[in-house]
Amino acid sequence: MTTKYVYLFKEGNASMKNLLGGKGANLADMTSLGMPVPQGFTVTTEACNDYYANKKVIKPEIIKQIFAALEATEKEYGKTFGDPNDPFLVSVRSGARASMPGMMDTILNLGLTNVSVKGLAKLTNNPRFAYDSYRRFIQMFADVVMEIDKENFEHLLEAMKHEKGVELDTDLNADDLEKLVGQFLVKYEELKGQPFPQDPREQLIEAITAVFRSWDNPRANTYRRLNHIPYEWGTAVNVQGMVFGNMGDDSGTGVAFSRNPSDGTNELYGEYLFNAQGEDVVAGIRTPKPIAELKKDNPALYEQFFNISKKLEAHYRDMQDMEFTIERGKLYMLQTRNGKRTAQAALKIAIDLVNEGVLTKKEAVLKVEPAQLDALLHPQFNPAALKKARVITTGLNASPGAATGRVAFTAERAKELKAKDGLPVILVRQETSPEDIEGMIVSSGILTSRGGMTSHAAVVARGMGTCCVAGAGAVRVYESKKYFEVNGEKFSEGDWISLDGSTGKVYGEKVETQDATVSGDFATLMAWADEFRALKVRTNADNPRDAKVAYNYGAEGIGLCRTEHMFFEADRIPAVREMIVAKNKAEREKALAKLLPMQRQDFIGLYKEMKGYAVTIRYLDPPLHEFVPTAEKDIRDLAKEMGLSYEELNATIEGLHETNPMLGHRGVRLSVTYPEIAEMQTRAVIEAAIQVNKEGMKVVPEIMIPLVGEVKELQMIKDVVVATAEKVIKESGVKLEYLVGTMIEIPRACITADEIAKEAEFFSFGTNDLTQMTFGFSRDDAGKFLGDYYEKKIFASDPFAHIDQKGVGKLMQIAVELGKKVRPDLKLGICGEHGGDPLSVEFCHNIGLTYVSCSPFRVPIARLAAAHANIKNPR
Amino acid sequence: MTTKYVYLFKEGNASMKNLLGGKGANLADMTSLGMPVPQGFTVTTEACNDYYANKKVIKPEIIKQIFAALEATEKEYGKTFGDPNDPFLVSVRSGARASMPGMMDTILNLGLTNVSVKGLAKLTNNPRFAYDSYRRFIQMFADVVMEIDKENFEHLLEAMKHEKGVELDTDLNADDLEKLVGQFLVKYEELKGQPFPQDPREQLIEAITAVFRSWDNPRANTYRRLNHIPYEWGTAVNVQGMVFGNMGDDSGTGVAFSRNPSDGTNELYGEYLFNAQGEDVVAGIRTPKPIAELKKDNPALYEQFFNISKKLEAHYRDMQDMEFTIERGKLYMLQTRNGKRTAQAALKIAIDLVNEGVLTKKEAVLKVEPAQLDALLHPQFNPAALKKARVITTGLNASPGAATGRVAFTAERAKELKAKDGLPVILVRQETSPEDIEGMIVSSGILTSRGGMTSHAAVVARGMGTCCVAGAGAVRVYESKKYFEVNGEKFSEGDWISLDGSTGKVYGEKVETQDATVSGDFATLMAWADEFRALKVRTNADNPRDAKVAYNYGAEGIGLCRTEHMFFEADRIPAVREMIVAKNKAEREKALAKLLPMQRQDFIGLYKEMKGYAVTIRYLDPPLHEFVPTAEKDIRDLAKEMGLSYEELNATIEGLHETNPMLGHRGVRLSVTYPEIAEMQTRAVIEAAIQVNKEGMKVVPEIMIPLVGEVKELQMIKDVVVATAEKVIKESGVKLEYLVGTMIEIPRACITADEIAKEAEFFSFGTNDLTQMTFGFSRDDAGKFLGDYYEKKIFASDPFAHIDQKGVGKLMQIAVELGKKVRPDLKLGICGEHGGDPLSVEFCHNIGLTYVSCSPFRVPIARLAAAHANIKNPR
Repeated sequence: MTTKYVYLFKEGNASMKNLLGGKGANLADMTSLGMPVPQGFTVTTEACNDYYANKKVIKPEIIKQIFAALEATEKEYGKTFGDPNDPFLVSVRSGARASMPGMMDTILNLGLTNVSVKGLAKLTNNPRFAYDSYRRFIQMFADVVMEIDKENFEHLLEAMKHEKGVELDTDLNADDLEKLVGQFLVKYEELKGQPFPQDPREQLIEAITAVFRSWDNPRANTYRRLNHIPYEWGTAVNVQGMVFGNMGDDSGTGVAFSRNPSDGTNELYGEYLFNAQGEDVVAGIRTPKPIAELKKDNPALYEQFFNISKKLEAHYRDMQDMEFTIERGKLYMLQTRNGKRTAQAALKIAIDLVNEGVLTKKEAVLKVEPAQLDALLHPQFNPAALKKARVITTGLNASPGAATGRVAFTAERAKELKAKDGLPVILVRQETSPEDIEGMIVSSGILTSRGGMTSHAAVVARGMGTCCVAGAGAVRVYESKKYFEVNGEKFSEGDWISLDGSTGKVYGEKVETQDATVSGDFATLMAWADEFRALKVRTNADNPRDAKVAYNYGAEGIGLCRTEHMFFEADRIPAVREMIVAKNKAEREKALAKLLPMQRQDFIGLYKEMKGYAVTIRYLDPPLHEFVPTAEKDIRDLAKEMGLSYEELNATIEGLHETNPMLGHRGVRLSVTYPEIAEMQTRAVIEAAIQVNKEGMKVVPEIMIPLVGEVKELQMIKDVVVATAEKVIKESGVKLEYLVGTMIEIPRACITADEIAKEAEFFSFGTNDLTQMTFGFSRDDAGKFLGDYYEKKIFASDPFAHIDQKGVGKLMQIAVELGKKVRPDLKLGICGEHGGDPLSVEFCHNIGLTYVSCSPFRVPIARLAAAHANIKNPR
Repeated sequence: MTTKYVYLFKEGNASMKNLLGGKGANLADMTSLGMPVPQGFTVTTEACNDYYANKKVIKPEIIKQIFAALEATEKEYGKTFGDPNDPFLVSVRSGARASMPGMMDTILNLGLTNVSVKGLAKLTNNPRFAYDSYRRFIQMFADVVMEIDKENFEHLLEAMKHEKGVELDTDLNADDLEKLVGQFLVKYEELKGQPFPQDPREQLIEAITAVFRSWDNPRANTYRRLNHIPYEWGTAVNVQGMVFGNMGDDSGTGVAFSRNPSDGTNELYGEYLFNAQGEDVVAGIRTPKPIAELKKDNPALYEQFFNISKKLEAHYRDMQDMEFTIERGKLYMLQTRNGKRTAQAALKIAIDLVNEGVLTKKEAVLKVEPAQLDALLHPQFNPAALKKARVITTGLNASPGAATGRVAFTAERAKELKAKDGLPVILVRQETSPEDIEGMIVSSGILTSRGGMTSHAAVVARGMGTCCVAGAGAVRVYESKKYFEVNGEKFSEGDWISLDGSTGKVYGEKVETQDATVSGDFATLMAWADEFRALKVRTNADNPRDAKVAYNYGAEGIGLCRTEHMFFEADRIPAVREMIVAKNKAEREKALAKLLPMQRQDFIGLYKEMKGYAVTIRYLDPPLHEFVPTAEKDIRDLAKEMGLSYEELNATIEGLHETNPMLGHRGVRLSVTYPEIAEMQTRAVIEAAIQVNKEGMKVVPEIMIPLVGEVKELQMIKDVVVATAEKVIKESGVKLEYLVGTMIEIPRACITADEIAKEAEFFSFGTNDLTQMTFGFSRDDAGKFLGDYYEKKIFASDPFAHIDQKGVGKLMQIAVELGKKVRPDLKLGICGEHGGDPLSVEFCHNIGLTYVSCSPFRVPIARLAAAHANIKNPR
């Protein structure tokens, strides 16, 4: 049996998403629900994969099936593709399994030729419409299929508008457009060296090929990497009979959400344009009307659309994002999908749907993407500062949150400015396009002068949780001159402005921000999440300030306190350096004695903020050279300060130099050489715990030895720790529980975890180092080639952002199994940066860890991710 | 039942070596063979381990058993320990499971006191003997048990000899010695603050404790590490009734081998001294007589000893190393063990024993230690150069081989000189002692002015395969003044001399050396070894010269050709640098085109030397910055040479800087970024193979991609390799087989070896990098703390010298299993430096590798080790 590569909408259904893509499956689904869907067919994702497997050629078998489906569709419409008098026209659109808004290319009005455009004009008695459709088609085909920069055609359009003294496309008449079509065809031939194809079948196959090809373009690859969409999925292609929103003022096109995607309010939310084709709305070239006005403009049609919207929402049990077209007063549904939404909206919609009886709590928890919460947890404007701030204009509140930063006018410059000093950047553009994606990622906020709530900038910003003010019409952007003007005031590249994405206000200065306060919906959903999760969530915190934030976000202990962060502080570093230059143990102990009271005080602060939750303290980890200067002048100054000769100090510092510091004298290796460091740190940990417990708390400190690769390392240091701790406890006369465990961050530790578990009372996976050593590249150096690795599809995502499950994850699994075999009640945690990444949290749940530990702001994300993990795969 | 910690010699047997140690088991064995062994008892290795487990205290139960055994032994002798008139005296000697010559401490004459020495004098009517025994005992006890530097007593002895105007100890009379004993006792009390113990039982327990303690002394630890003797084995202690070689001229002591340990000749070989105690012979203070002279001195005794020697050799089926004492004309056997021997002797003895019908070939192969062969394979003097060389003196030919190097007078200086510039060093000392061990290891040769063939220097040097000339009496060493004089000529520290350890000749200059020629015995034994091994042995060779050496040593192919070594050569480096600074692919390809003919020529050379054996070529591996200078001046010069501005070149070079070069942009990562490098290298590999095969050879090149951690890396480069190779082959019109495989040197490669095996036609374990990444430390940096790791017994041996079987080895096993699951005929090799280490070779055999690859000089060692492995654990 031959594989079926092409499905009519009538042949598909909602369960065939993997094969038909999201768009194709939903078009089939809407068809079977009896909704007004222009009929057509879907070329499957398998056909796309076959195309790539087959040296980027669509094989004859698939082409045969395409034309068979085309024939069936022609019959449906009673029209013929390429008919000179009444041409059947189609749209060609991509549709992957996961929605990739704006990332892939679309072609409308396909099938028009120099001959049939005349037939269409005659048949519809609307030459303006016919030539408008044709000029759009030529431009899209040239751009998408032939990779001719669309600027070439836009210049001609602008010139024509200028010549005619009009502002909008709609002001051009049929003659103007016919003339423009002529110019386009000349331009096309000039640039391609061959005329615009006049065979609709050739157009169709070229267009489908272009969609397949677009799956592999750089911005699609970037989007996939950021959203963990496997390259192997491929895209389907939807070929759909055209309906026309540009047939006159009784025609139009629009997009709408079944609920407000910005705040979640249960109201129809969207925009439409009369006498336009779809791209006009999302590209933001003309500012569209709010959907509510359709109620006035055409109440019956509004009613019909509203009912469809409710029906679809109920059907999919989620808020829908829909595209529609009105052709001569008749409504057509072009697509529906679960709508992207802000975090705030996601929370409200999820909770409302529970209250409406549509979803269970469990289902509602799954509707909120953990990563989205980030937007809620980031700083907001300080209200006092905001009061004094000067509003320079107001645009659309396209994506909530507050941002302050320096102005940049191109994605490129935004990246450069940000990279230069790390200070925030705000990307200011007339409108954004998919090419701007990387600049948008680095920016703290996005301001556009054109486009609406569903413009590219707005949709993408919401998805990323980045603050966005869109369509701020008063803003005039002079990109090449590197400034924008608003009401006569000029702002140049590098000037500070601020955006409030929730109100749409733009401020002409830097405005102080402050921590987010979490709303009632947030608390409700997090409480539900906590009901369902099995993983505990701790935080990485080195000081009481961070510990407090994390506690308020629900952290259930500290999973990692990096004691060296305390060592770097100004009042400690002299004693640390004294320890480093010490010539013998006695001198070293003298220096350590100075650090003891400070460390003790640090730990007291942490214990108190954690109110009895476990606090895990990692012993000194970095190589000692990190604590000393390297420049000659600094060494001279320090030598003077320490009363040493320059030569002497310099010799010590040179002695500390390492070829590969990542693989050097650090972690437990320091304690093996200088057990007195572990001794001092133990004294501080235990004395602090005793003191806090005397005040009525019950802290159980967890002492964590880093970088262990061989059980005897741990054994030796554990002996030092236990001897010291027992001595301190005995001195104090009170009882104290404490644990001694280890980081698992070296491949050998994973492989020999059964031996290590004999000594370790807990494991905490240090996945940053483990990733570096498992892959054999350092984070500092991998930057040079990781770009090539993404481009050449060797890596699908950054292994430092998401746990590499096949390699690093496998080692973790081995360690968990070996460790539990020896010590069934072994506590298992993770404290690498992966601890706050939802994909990695899910993995940690699945391999049976006890807790994850992450930065304070990621704690709620980890809680929600843990709930998702346990709902999907209950323990 | 209580554990039995103490065994009488009569209670033990040869199979109890683990419990009784080698010496104890053999004493028991000799006893049961009816040989004249002074009776006594052995305190077990378990007692030693108990001592360490018990905070370094011998527990009462063990002490009870010791005294019970002592009582039984007293009965045997009819004497009583501590009897003032007729004291029973004992020796206390260590005896571990493996022989550790000279590493552990011995005490003789234990049981003497101020009172009983008088009784002994009276009883024996030999006051000289009694006081000589007592003064020796005091000195040994002070040294070994109380850790008082023996120098203190030797000064007194020297002063006495000076006072009496005599040269030898034996020239001192009873009065002198009695006086000396008095001085010793005063000195002892002065230094220890308490009198010399007068309770023999206290002496005994202190002495046993000291032997246990000596198990953990630094030189024992070093010896164990070098010889892979586990710390956990512990040492036994032998307490044996004393017989006295110092009772007069009818008494004596000696050591002898049943065959010549230097060349293997079947003759009794050894030395003895009249009127002496054992240590006098081995310490080399007096130069002893050859054993042959005993035949004249006392034919009956010689005959008796000779017969015992033959009987023991037949019993143990190996050459024996025996200690004996003659007390008033009666022979006593104090110990026997399998004798250490030179590699030459080992070969000859093994082959002779086969010819004599004592051993099978298989057993004979096992009798030769692979590591020993090293001594045979190292350079010898160039005969022409030797002819002209000036002999300054001749000593004993104590350990064969040739050495040339700079003179150093202390172990310390030897290490420093060697470390400074890597040039060879010859250690020159009056006599060596165990403290010198580390200096002996770094030295190419050892010259002593005193001591015989069984002196410390001679025994240790033979064991290490280091050339040694001992007892060169004409040499006067002035250690503190840093020169030696021989026949009026002065040689200072740093001057070059040469030694011929096979003739005993010392040359007063540098003498050119040349490759070893391997003897008939060598060839015979290697042929036997080849019959029994399953592992193939290849070599690591980057040039035809090395390839030729390896081929002659039996290499069955090249397992690793590091192409970058060719890149560093003067005629290539400009093109390499041109490639590095290239601004684009075209420029890079231009530079690579210059390298192509040179690389092709290199490969032709290698293929030809290998005469049809497989040649494995590893593609460019090191980070590019290794090919460019870093000093400003050098960069300026290079910029000029290359016609670039300094700034431009410097920017390129700075761009190449890496924080952790070990974990940077290298290996396959370079090819991912610059596939054109792999393309050029493939062209060179394939074109060279085609050319050589046209000349009638049949080379199958094996292309090896380094540093793969993810199958997609390999996939991508393999595509480039195969496309290029197929193109070149097609162009040539001939057929050519080739393989594409990968190094397995990254932990992730082991963990995902099933995926990698889908693409790789062979694996070659790069255990240098794999060790670094598995442990998470770099070889360059680990030097700083590995010393601490040995000292604190965290590591038993250097993981870069012997495969860490628990960690790195486990990963290798995982990789083998996963790889074979996917590709059952997967070729498996190792090309790290471990490939030439016998312990690692055995491991590689056991996990089922196809071949090991090692440096040319290690090929025979690997062949023999592979035979051992397969004999012990047949495939």
